[in-house]
Amino acid sequence: MSKKLTPRAEDYSKWYNELVVKADLAENSAVRGCMVIKPYGYAIWEKMQATLDKMFKETGHQNAYFPLFVPKSLFEAEEKNAEGFAKECAIVTHYRLQTDPDRPGKLRVDPEAKLEEELIVRPTSEAIIWNTYRNWIQSYRDLPILINQWANVVRWEMRTRLFLRTAEFLWQEGHTAHETKAEAITEAKLMNQVYATFAENFMAMPVIQGVKTESERFAGAEETFCIEALMQDGKALQAGTSHFLGQNFAKAFDVKFANKEGKQDHVWATSWGVSTRLMGALIMTHSDDFGLVLPPSLAPNQVVIVPIYKSEEEFESISKVVNTIVSNLREQNISVKYDYRDTQRPGAKFAQHELQGVPIRIAIGPKDLLYGTVEIARRDTLTKEIVSLNDLTATVKQLLEAMQKSLFAKALHYRDSHITEVDTFEAFKTVLETKGGFISAHWDGTNETEAKIKELTKATIRCIPLERNEEHGACVLTGKPSKYRVLFAKAY
Amino acid sequence: MSKKLTPRAEDYSKWYNELVVKADLAENSAVRGCMVIKPYGYAIWEKMQATLDKMFKETGHQNAYFPLFVPKSLFEAEEKNAEGFAKECAIVTHYRLQTDPDRPGKLRVDPEAKLEEELIVRPTSEAIIWNTYRNWIQSYRDLPILINQWANVVRWEMRTRLFLRTAEFLWQEGHTAHETKAEAITEAKLMNQVYATFAENFMAMPVIQGVKTESERFAGAEETFCIEALMQDGKALQAGTSHFLGQNFAKAFDVKFANKEGKQDHVWATSWGVSTRLMGALIMTHSDDFGLVLPPSLAPNQVVIVPIYKSEEEFESISKVVNTIVSNLREQNISVKYDYRDTQRPGAKFAQHELQGVPIRIAIGPKDLLYGTVEIARRDTLTKEIVSLNDLTATVKQLLEAMQKSLFAKALHYRDSHITEVDTFEAFKTVLETKGGFISAHWDGTNETEAKIKELTKATIRCIPLERNEEHGACVLTGKPSKYRVLFAKAY
Repeated sequence: MSKKLTPRAEDYSKWYNELVVKADLAENSAVRGCMVIKPYGYAIWEKMQATLDKMFKETGHQNAYFPLFVPKSLFEAEEKNAEGFAKECAIVTHYRLQTDPDRPGKLRVDPEAKLEEELIVRPTSEAIIWNTYRNWIQSYRDLPILINQWANVVRWEMRTRLFLRTAEFLWQEGHTAHETKAEAITEAKLMNQVYATFAENFMAMPVIQGVKTESERFAGAEETFCIEALMQDGKALQAGTSHFLGQNFAKAFDVKFANKEGKQDHVWATSWGVSTRLMGALIMTHSDDFGLVLPPSLAPNQVVIVPIYKSEEEFESISKVVNTIVSNLREQNISVKYDYRDTQRPGAKFAQHELQGVPIRIAIGPKDLLYGTVEIARRDTLTKEIVSLNDLTATVKQLLEAMQKSLFAKALHYRDSHITEVDTFEAFKTVLETKGGFISAHWDGTNETEAKIKELTKATIRCIPLERNEEHGACVLTGKPSKYRVLFAKAY
Repeated sequence: MSKKLTPRAEDYSKWYNELVVKADLAENSAVRGCMVIKPYGYAIWEKMQATLDKMFKETGHQNAYFPLFVPKSLFEAEEKNAEGFAKECAIVTHYRLQTDPDRPGKLRVDPEAKLEEELIVRPTSEAIIWNTYRNWIQSYRDLPILINQWANVVRWEMRTRLFLRTAEFLWQEGHTAHETKAEAITEAKLMNQVYATFAENFMAMPVIQGVKTESERFAGAEETFCIEALMQDGKALQAGTSHFLGQNFAKAFDVKFANKEGKQDHVWATSWGVSTRLMGALIMTHSDDFGLVLPPSLAPNQVVIVPIYKSEEEFESISKVVNTIVSNLREQNISVKYDYRDTQRPGAKFAQHELQGVPIRIAIGPKDLLYGTVEIARRDTLTKEIVSLNDLTATVKQLLEAMQKSLFAKALHYRDSHITEVDTFEAFKTVLETKGGFISAHWDGTNETEAKIKELTKATIRCIPLERNEEHGACVLTGKPSKYRVLFAKAY
């Protein structure tokens, strides 16, 4: 398999698929729509997890674990939620295999081992969790409950793509219970803000915070907050959602509490989640035709060092210097890998680390030893410079910080230059087809108009931005009055 | 529900179940045999995970993630493995629900959405992983592969108990691929040693390393290494296993590599795992009739501070001192929680922290402010002492270290005094029924004798210890010659 990627300009989708596989991030498995997350890809996900987990704990949340399966009778209790997920559920119906009498050495499902009630492999855990919360909550003293779960979920998708849409994916799902509506809404907004902070400060990916229209809302939610990002091909990607669930699940599962006045009331709920889809967003925000580009904050190895040598003596002299460099960098909490493999030539190593997006590559050869220098290559700009060994740690540290900022600035510039205000449907269609990106337009607020625009253009309302100007306008399709602009885009 | 536990001496099994629920570790769910791991229980599991994960990485392993589902044709490829797990598999047969025409608002399995091939919810991942490794391995340069996965697995158990035996459980499973038989055996032994180190140094739980007899081996393994612990009721518990899988999976999935001489050979394999079962082992090794006792190394909160006050002013004066204590302790990497809840009286807090096994409880009241002291209560011995504020950080640090050692020493003393050598079958039965624990006895090495002893006494061979004396003896049942003693016990 050639190391070279199809250029983005030629076929963005092909470029993405090749990159994911060639950079050793993930691959398709023998199970339809399920992926294998390879060690390098998983190491990036682990960094995301660790960062988010810390942010959740700092905002008062605790982790717990609930069952993988949801009995059908619980699954269907909240009707809107059930209806929303019914068409994509994996269903366990039997609990035993037996020897197949017709095929020696092979197995078949034991027809005697049919479950009395089918089990749904969780597509999301509201049902099983709210059925549990019923026993945990009696009084206002038991509230709030602020719980998060790291788990796998399954949604049977017909068209799948590595990280972006897979039948099984990894995610976290927060599920909180509150005394009042106001407190629950505050929580849903707070967690959407946590996602935005994570996306911008760690993924270096600018996002727009907003709320979803009714038709794009989570099944069972009263309001869905979201963060929306823009990929390099001008398509939007929903990167995280946080739902205010009202009392819907509390009513479906009969979860009541005695408030301070001793009166019984249903509990207010939120849920919020981000998934391995963020890996797709990260890849598509920064990477280039040479491969992955990673923000230093999420790179498993921020620095890789490649020795250039001919003899064993040269290698030993170089390694002595490298050991000092490594320990100096580690002292500054910079993750660094010394790539001393003797099965690969330096050129092959350079290509691999470029493909895998290591932010800084340091090369050191006999001449560097002589002059007390190294060569530093920067992944985002692909520029190289010679640096004195004396300044190396400080230089690397500054460079990593600069790269993190620069990647964000570049993505922000792209995003901001791809939000186009339009006031006619002709302009809407032209911008969508020629430039892409977000289209900021007036909408009359009806499901019908939203559906019609989607039918005509494939663009959907990504969100009603939280930060928006009140302005009187006319719906881009119907001309009916509108009070603010919303953001349309084609989306992943 | 009363806070008081059934005493161990009265009903050990009841004591265990009550403790798990009342200490907020876990509870049964609406799904048969599946548990909910509550935040406090999960926090302990997270500490176990973090420690093990670090140990795996230090021994060169990387994490990855493989699909939850195994297509039946892959599952049955390694026949012994498939046969071993066939009777306890959850099986997905359909991928969609639909509205039930007979019950408005309810759902049923869509008969049209039957999978062509059934999917097994992984009971273990050798099949799906070795099917993947086939594409990763061409030459000796691709070896070794040293991968671990943190995941949920499902084994349909008829009799379940929280943590000890549940239909779904959380675990880690290592899956490695090697050039040579010797290297794979070394790996399997190394990981068993890692488990032993973790059990002894962190869980403060002494273990015996050994190998399983043929009948107790993992389905598909050539050799199963294990660590065996002894619970307070004299029953043994298998705490971790590490398998040398030979070339069985490589042959079943056709995984070959070109060795240094250019010849094709099948790859050698290991797999190894520990699970949330360790939570049960931890609980049963140290806890007492008052509740959970936790080794400081795995306690989510090593220290809890309870203020004793009448007025708001007293509370404020106390809180000032506590803030200093907290920051001093945290500086020493001691985890500490200030329990300032005003919804609970100090007595209720004391009872809760005792039940939940917080190693050190510090109480501080107005008199302590006057004298510059606090009261320290130690969970393992239930002793209290007055300590000067000046010495507090050092005292706490020493105490935590002492408790960690003392818990291990106590468990080791119990374990060692419950390994009994017997030379007759009468003595075997008497010791088993009156004293319990491990019975060290000669065995003729046959499956038949092992099965007969199990049938007669319910005791099984827990392991053939790695450290054993070669000595000529006679099998405790048949009198046939034997070269070393093995360890029998009743087991969880």
